[in-house]
Amino acid sequence: MSRDAAAGAALAIGIDLGGTSLRLAAYRGLEAAAGAAAAAAGPGGAPPVALTPVAHHREPVGEPRDPDTMVARIADHVARLVDAARAAGDADDDAVVPVGLGIAAMLRDHRGTVANSPHLRWRDVDLGARLAARLGPRHPLAIHNDVNAITYGEYGLGAAVGARDVLAVYVGTGIGAGLIVDGRLAEGASHCAGELGHVKVAWDAGAAPCACGGRGCVEAYVGGSYLLRRIRGELAGGAPSLARDLAGAAPVTVAHVDDAAGRGDRWALELWQELAPLLAIALGNALALLNPARLVLGGGVLSRTPVLVELTLAALEIAAPAAALEPLTIAPAALGDDAGLVGAALLATRDARPG
Amino acid sequence: MSRDAAAGAALAIGIDLGGTSLRLAAYRGLEAAAGAAAAAAGPGGAPPVALTPVAHHREPVGEPRDPDTMVARIADHVARLVDAARAAGDADDDAVVPVGLGIAAMLRDHRGTVANSPHLRWRDVDLGARLAARLGPRHPLAIHNDVNAITYGEYGLGAAVGARDVLAVYVGTGIGAGLIVDGRLAEGASHCAGELGHVKVAWDAGAAPCACGGRGCVEAYVGGSYLLRRIRGELAGGAPSLARDLAGAAPVTVAHVDDAAGRGDRWALELWQELAPLLAIALGNALALLNPARLVLGGGVLSRTPVLVELTLAALEIAAPAAALEPLTIAPAALGDDAGLVGAALLATRDARPG
Repeated sequence: MSRDAAAGAALAIGIDLGGTSLRLAAYRGLEAAAGAAAAAAGPGGAPPVALTPVAHHREPVGEPRDPDTMVARIADHVARLVDAARAAGDADDDAVVPVGLGIAAMLRDHRGTVANSPHLRWRDVDLGARLAARLGPRHPLAIHNDVNAITYGEYGLGAAVGARDVLAVYVGTGIGAGLIVDGRLAEGASHCAGELGHVKVAWDAGAAPCACGGRGCVEAYVGGSYLLRRIRGELAGGAPSLARDLAGAAPVTVAHVDDAAGRGDRWALELWQELAPLLAIALGNALALLNPARLVLGGGVLSRTPVLVELTLAALEIAAPAAALEPLTIAPAALGDDAGLVGAALLATRDARPG
Repeated sequence: MSRDAAAGAALAIGIDLGGTSLRLAAYRGLEAAAGAAAAAAGPGGAPPVALTPVAHHREPVGEPRDPDTMVARIADHVARLVDAARAAGDADDDAVVPVGLGIAAMLRDHRGTVANSPHLRWRDVDLGARLAARLGPRHPLAIHNDVNAITYGEYGLGAAVGARDVLAVYVGTGIGAGLIVDGRLAEGASHCAGELGHVKVAWDAGAAPCACGGRGCVEAYVGGSYLLRRIRGELAGGAPSLARDLAGAAPVTVAHVDDAAGRGDRWALELWQELAPLLAIALGNALALLNPARLVLGGGVLSRTPVLVELTLAALEIAAPAAALEPLTIAPAALGDDAGLVGAALLATRDARPG
């Protein structure tokens, strides 16, 4: 290990492999920054740390996206990032540089075997073994589910700094959650922990059907793709709402509906008042079970719907047990699109550390 | 540390302080037995280990039950158990003997400060500090919530051996749960993790009021005290049921209702068919979040209601995501009343071990 690594200022690379973009970033001193942030945090957390990568890259996943092609592309980009960091004096030639990858996939094990990734159209791909073989022993590799990587980024340097027990909930196209339990990422027996999107919030005859095959999943109500379909369907069906005017010529989004709700639009408010308690029940029940110190809320829907968030948090005061609310602080996700890169790099750094 | 301890055959004492009984047991070789059981376990678990204490004691809590009195009583019994074990050749004179205590209480910290114990009528009691002072440095002390101690006992030597991620659910007078996450007890930010009894399974106008102040908690439907009150109320109100005949002169219990349901009694079956899905939803949502390898079901209600359990497990097939069911095995609690003693002693042994 280089002197840099020993000093906690070592280089690490985070990768975010989604269905749309492949992103990589090389960070220096991530572990030291996370340690300092945790040490400085108060009970309510700490300001997020703006950590500028020493090198980064982004490109569309595009086609072809088969495993062989993607492994080769990722390994090439890692080599380029390390070269760039070395040229800038940010890494010794012999340094060990951990590589962490967050992927939009269901994983099968700790070695990065992909059970299924609809985004990449992969099934049963030994990504970890292939990529590790390409990267070599100087690049210890850690592969995690993307939501877990994002959660760990917020835990290390974002909205959950200072908390040992964290529930991070992302409401975007779908709903996912990441769990930190006593300072460690909780992945579950088959790497499926945090399936908050598929907790049931309705089980009567009218419970909404979900793409998972179940009914009444909270995602089938509040997940962005379901929500948008319902919004556009109701507006197309003639529902009177300011949201249509706010959108103008553009398609109506959840942000327009939230804006309308904030202005007192009756249809928008009724919709939000129906959905907020359902999301609150899912959140409150998770808080009852996990008793975290921090609840992080993020994702493309919640970051654009302050009124829905406010109504959800009001409902949460009733939905969650008082004992679970007492130690809790609630914070919006702080690292945005970088959370997954930071989290993957930090997980790889900590996984690679002996002991 | 004695040679016994080094050989993994050391003595440890488990204590169960409930609202009714104070129980203590001295075990030898607990850690070694747990290690052997885990090593021998298959994916579905292992036969529970019958571990006979080398000495044990049980007495009513009785009165007075103030902290000073209870600390003195507990310390005296610990000394007697250690003396008995030594007399029998089960411990060296200079051996460190860890003491673990499971208590029916809400704890405030890792040092055994009791925030609240309705059973003992204690509030803000520094039990850990007082008892540790009485026991002295030869008896490293660990204090845990009783449900956590029971869960850890099942994890170490009972129904959850071999699993690294466990959800143990006890439906008795109330409903409680314990969580093992990646081999460690998960206690939450304020020691309130596992409050499964207060997850909401109803939130309409008719949601059942719960003693916690909330409404729609699963405990307010399936918890033994609520359930029995409802059963006796409906039968007193004239509901036609075989349960009344099965009870004869004795008061009707949940076991009579279950027996009646098993014989096709319509009222009993309708009651169970109403309640089983509510319990299944609470369980299924917890499985979605935690993705455990083992679900342990225990407690005074579930151990006496096989038909209710069968209906609940059938409903769970629908209520839980398929991905959460895939790695899961479900097992009844195996250690009975000894689980808390075994778990507390094992937790104390592992807490006391350096590293």
